[in-house]
Amino acid sequence: MVDPSDVAAVVNVGDDTEFHGLTVCPDLDTITYTLAGAVNPDTGWGLAGETWAALGSLRRHARANERADVGWFALGDLDLGTHLWRAHRLAEGARLTEVTAEITRTFGLGLRLLPVTDDPIRTKVTTPDGATLTFQEYFVRERHEVDVASVRFSGAVGARPTPEATIALRDAAAVIIAPSNPVVSVGPVLAVPGITQGLTSRRDTVVAVSPIVGGMALKGPAARLMENLGEEASVVGVARRYAPFARALVIDPIDAHLAGAVGEVGIEPIVAPSIMDTPDHAAALARVCLAGRAL
Amino acid sequence: MVDPSDVAAVVNVGDDTEFHGLTVCPDLDTITYTLAGAVNPDTGWGLAGETWAALGSLRRHARANERADVGWFALGDLDLGTHLWRAHRLAEGARLTEVTAEITRTFGLGLRLLPVTDDPIRTKVTTPDGATLTFQEYFVRERHEVDVASVRFSGAVGARPTPEATIALRDAAAVIIAPSNPVVSVGPVLAVPGITQGLTSRRDTVVAVSPIVGGMALKGPAARLMENLGEEASVVGVARRYAPFARALVIDPIDAHLAGAVGEVGIEPIVAPSIMDTPDHAAALARVCLAGRAL
Repeated sequence: MVDPSDVAAVVNVGDDTEFHGLTVCPDLDTITYTLAGAVNPDTGWGLAGETWAALGSLRRHARANERADVGWFALGDLDLGTHLWRAHRLAEGARLTEVTAEITRTFGLGLRLLPVTDDPIRTKVTTPDGATLTFQEYFVRERHEVDVASVRFSGAVGARPTPEATIALRDAAAVIIAPSNPVVSVGPVLAVPGITQGLTSRRDTVVAVSPIVGGMALKGPAARLMENLGEEASVVGVARRYAPFARALVIDPIDAHLAGAVGEVGIEPIVAPSIMDTPDHAAALARVCLAGRAL
Repeated sequence: MVDPSDVAAVVNVGDDTEFHGLTVCPDLDTITYTLAGAVNPDTGWGLAGETWAALGSLRRHARANERADVGWFALGDLDLGTHLWRAHRLAEGARLTEVTAEITRTFGLGLRLLPVTDDPIRTKVTTPDGATLTFQEYFVRERHEVDVASVRFSGAVGARPTPEATIALRDAAAVIIAPSNPVVSVGPVLAVPGITQGLTSRRDTVVAVSPIVGGMALKGPAARLMENLGEEASVVGVARRYAPFARALVIDPIDAHLAGAVGEVGIEPIVAPSIMDTPDHAAALARVCLAGRAL
């Protein structure tokens, strides 16, 4: 097995947003809380045992002042403590990478969680009627129930990958692209200058896992987004995105009939169970990925 | 009696401070919570029924990362909702005056609460050994148990009084200077350019109440601060501060023997009970003040 301290996760920051003075990093925090066993089991985000007094108070102000647009994002009291810590440290000049290491330390995590960049990247979604939404407005407020005409990663062009992320992606024995949303979760990571090139240069050791199984996203709007953007909402569509910089793509047995089509777009299909519904299945998938790189 | 909507309170903002990304306004909030009957009766600040989950979470991060200097200011969950609202509105470009009106609206207050200025003023306290503290570091963290060599109001010189405060102080039938700390509560209000001059120009209708009774401050460090600054910690010291712009000073019967000395420094002493331990006593004191202006 792999020691947690030997594992680094390079994480999307395009979901980050400013709420009421605080910088909220949903991807980083959800990973931290989940790996620490502290995530709210009912929601899959936020903290177990959460209370909502601050949000209730904020919403009371919003109601009294007829601002229905304020307070739609659910910030729990315990979660707010994390955001207050992050705001405090960022105001002191700490890098997001440092603050993230501190938060994972609080939760006793062994692995390193590395924001792909310390620069602000903000995923923006434009709808067919021309409205531009922040990622959280799209994902949480609109429950990703709107069509999307385009997605852009504001700030990505000028962002620099962190030294830590650069070294991790350069020196790791293997790079696994998790079964995340290729457009809005993996996309902002790849959009940081140097990241895609870095993966391409070590393509033989990069293995991706398809988040699309049987034509549907395991969760979230990956399939609808890919369709909206004119891509195929299947393992083949995922393969087209990843082929330039990944050697192999793990596809679920339910998609075994598409293995040939995946191979034809230039990435090696690995047919293996890919649904991480138990820790054992997750560990097995990790082993498949590690075995799937060229050695 | 006076209708609450005819009353405006011009309020000190020198106690304001930034905590973890949020602007905290202890004077404005404590007045709001108190007048709304929502103040925590045990502490005299914060909200009744408060919970502390966010602060506990913040302190957990501080402990895990050996930052004992973070999290000493007690921010309750309900109170945080107010600060989140304020941060949200200030980030939208609202003036502090507007945000304060919104917060008092939430709490159903009738009177107008007017920050003396929308510009940031920050009271700074320097100790004899040369350390400079923010007001909350001095007042809360150090429990005002340190000696003070000097007090300054950072930002005051360039601050402008709000139109609302200016008009209120110009047009009011009477101005009452509450029995607050003359140095660090009334001082930052008077330090805003134009405020002292405005009071001076209508001196006949300005009545102050001494916060020093029997040589002791009713609460807080007023007496010790005045001593530190080389002033007399008595109604006479208070009289010296207020004589240039106030016609009369209410002193408690316990200080009746100092009425002559008060008069000698140029302000008319009004001997009357000044301790507001019940609503009836507070109302009586208000009547004394209103009667104390020249008509």
